[in-house]
Amino acid sequence: MGSACQEHGDGFHCSNNRFSNVFQANETAGKVITCKAAVVWGPEEPLVIEEVQVEPPQKMEVRIKILFTSICHTDLGAWKGLNEMQRVYPRILGHEAAGVVESVGEGVEDLKEGDHVVPIFNGECGKCTHCESPMTNLCARFRVDPFKSTMAGDGRTRFSVINRAGERRPIYHFLNTSTFTEFTVLDSACVVKVNPMAPLRRMCLLSCGISTGVGAVWNTANLKEGSTVAVFGLGAVGLAVAEGARLRGASEVIGVDINLEKFVKGREMGITKFINPKDCDKPVNEVIREMTNGGVDYSFECAGNLDVLREAFLSTHDGWGFTVILGIHPTPRLLPLHPMELFDGRRITGSVFGDFKGKSQLPDFVDKYMNGEIKINLDGFITHELPFADINKALQLLSEGKSLRCLLHL
Amino acid sequence: MGSACQEHGDGFHCSNNRFSNVFQANETAGKVITCKAAVVWGPEEPLVIEEVQVEPPQKMEVRIKILFTSICHTDLGAWKGLNEMQRVYPRILGHEAAGVVESVGEGVEDLKEGDHVVPIFNGECGKCTHCESPMTNLCARFRVDPFKSTMAGDGRTRFSVINRAGERRPIYHFLNTSTFTEFTVLDSACVVKVNPMAPLRRMCLLSCGISTGVGAVWNTANLKEGSTVAVFGLGAVGLAVAEGARLRGASEVIGVDINLEKFVKGREMGITKFINPKDCDKPVNEVIREMTNGGVDYSFECAGNLDVLREAFLSTHDGWGFTVILGIHPTPRLLPLHPMELFDGRRITGSVFGDFKGKSQLPDFVDKYMNGEIKINLDGFITHELPFADINKALQLLSEGKSLRCLLHL
Repeated sequence: MGSACQEHGDGFHCSNNRFSNVFQANETAGKVITCKAAVVWGPEEPLVIEEVQVEPPQKMEVRIKILFTSICHTDLGAWKGLNEMQRVYPRILGHEAAGVVESVGEGVEDLKEGDHVVPIFNGECGKCTHCESPMTNLCARFRVDPFKSTMAGDGRTRFSVINRAGERRPIYHFLNTSTFTEFTVLDSACVVKVNPMAPLRRMCLLSCGISTGVGAVWNTANLKEGSTVAVFGLGAVGLAVAEGARLRGASEVIGVDINLEKFVKGREMGITKFINPKDCDKPVNEVIREMTNGGVDYSFECAGNLDVLREAFLSTHDGWGFTVILGIHPTPRLLPLHPMELFDGRRITGSVFGDFKGKSQLPDFVDKYMNGEIKINLDGFITHELPFADINKALQLLSEGKSLRCLLHL
Repeated sequence: MGSACQEHGDGFHCSNNRFSNVFQANETAGKVITCKAAVVWGPEEPLVIEEVQVEPPQKMEVRIKILFTSICHTDLGAWKGLNEMQRVYPRILGHEAAGVVESVGEGVEDLKEGDHVVPIFNGECGKCTHCESPMTNLCARFRVDPFKSTMAGDGRTRFSVINRAGERRPIYHFLNTSTFTEFTVLDSACVVKVNPMAPLRRMCLLSCGISTGVGAVWNTANLKEGSTVAVFGLGAVGLAVAEGARLRGASEVIGVDINLEKFVKGREMGITKFINPKDCDKPVNEVIREMTNGGVDYSFECAGNLDVLREAFLSTHDGWGFTVILGIHPTPRLLPLHPMELFDGRRITGSVFGDFKGKSQLPDFVDKYMNGEIKINLDGFITHELPFADINKALQLLSEGKSLRCLLHL
């Protein structure tokens, strides 16, 4: 690993980085910042880089300078407006990023200017019954909410644009985060401070996809060494599942995808066998059960498709098979399972952000990554890098299944 | 607790019991026994007490003299022929019973004549991958199978009747057990030897319903002391759930049933609050969530109704709620849950025979019951007692929701 500076991962100390000027901090703290952001104006319309006004953080809020952001399928879904209730425009999408705190609002005590941070779409207030329970990472107030589009404190937005007629128009927030912008405002519950030596370009990946995948293995499934695994859908999240399973000592990790290109990448990421459903003359669950003497111990559905979900469920061993749903299912279709099928001892559960409590647990993950205890191949997930201005190209790459993560540099 | 003899629970030593004559054992071992059995000839037809021939046990089989049997809703369902694949006649139903071993077949080493036993519909061979796994009680070979109607060894029946023309007609088995008969033949995997001091009249209840209910709490849910619980459907299984929750120190056990009579009994069995859905002006799940500051920690569905199942699921607390399905769902309807609902952190699972491994774990349960460590109120479940000849009356009582368990004396 190179030094943080070489990796553009330590903007605070790196004088070559255009970010460094933020830290004539008192110049911007408390003031509106005008900066560039990628705004979506309607479903599937190309994002437009606009000059936006970003208000100062209010009580318990934080304004951060985004240095890196990447795109995840949840952004794609919102961009396409797959769910009618998500059709809120204009909006700044994006939720996977890394950056540095520019200023904090009243009452914020755990973060300060210059802290290296990653935003989390599934926040942690630390005070509610949920946050106090060891059994869930769903904060009562700041859990993931795809329908929320304003700040929790006052129900307003912190972004706006001014049109040619000089009128101010609010721009809506997305998923507690909105990271397709040079500056964003988040509730402090959604900002995780990480080790300042950790390269921010890699930390960006922990903001959503990779944490979601490895956490589903480590926390949700709590996979036992020597277990067998099937992963359905080999995007970044699916491959993070494979990587998490490899790190936990899985004996076999079967990858399932119809995109042959994913198989090449998969070999680096712990996948030991591949199945392309198009090559099978019977249901994939039968193929897997034959390959594994009755079924895998764990399956992970990362495709967001209910027919795939049923295959994933049935591909596990009866008696103890455990299926974790990671995919987002926007259709109104119900779970394609008969209740009596649960009597075969197969279990199924959903996992949000890999069951990590972001603010409590991610810093430890990062520290262990930095000291070599967690040997996760983060760079392997970065298949493309582009300047922020090329964000539409990055959207396209993901949409066509050509990239895992395209890192956008701001 | 009286002496075993007074309770007709210790036939071997009780000279008043008409069973004692079995133990001029060599007289019957290896021979066909002619005895009385209640035979069902068609869906919903009254059971007919017939003279049946019971063959000697074959390899790894056991013939037992049934002393007590009771009726469970699974028998009712098979009697009504709710599932077409179950319409196999003539048949001897019944799976909840207690008795004494009359003779054993070749290779049976863990059981011998005179042993006090309870049949289990969900067997345990002790040798398969499933039996060797601590994660399941579903034996590969002898797990519950409502569609099986012959012996596993040779695919034949051990019961027959001879009609007036002198022709022998096979009578089919049910649920690995068939206990509505004075003598039955089971695979030894489906016979559990219990402490001979334990009253067999009570042991009968552990053969299915009570073990299923308390086991769902102790094993499947592994309920934590101080938790809150909702039980949907207050038949014997539902009340056994309540009793199991009481014994584990649940702080609140809410019972839900539309049958007011169940509420009286429920008070004895650990139920602390009642809800009659007919009295509610909103969905029961909302009522329960309001009563419990967001939902119960655990819910148990013992009604076999998918709309009730959905209420049970939603009545738990988001983030950690755990729903256990105990009811049998014969309809083709799928689970009425949307996959995204699993992202609210509620979990759902099925439980068979309370996740007890019958042969390994029931004897310990019985020993702990006998030494007072498990203070379960078994007598409370026996609401009626009748001679075997009145079995149709007992069916009726259960069908009308008037009995929890009607103990039939053979």
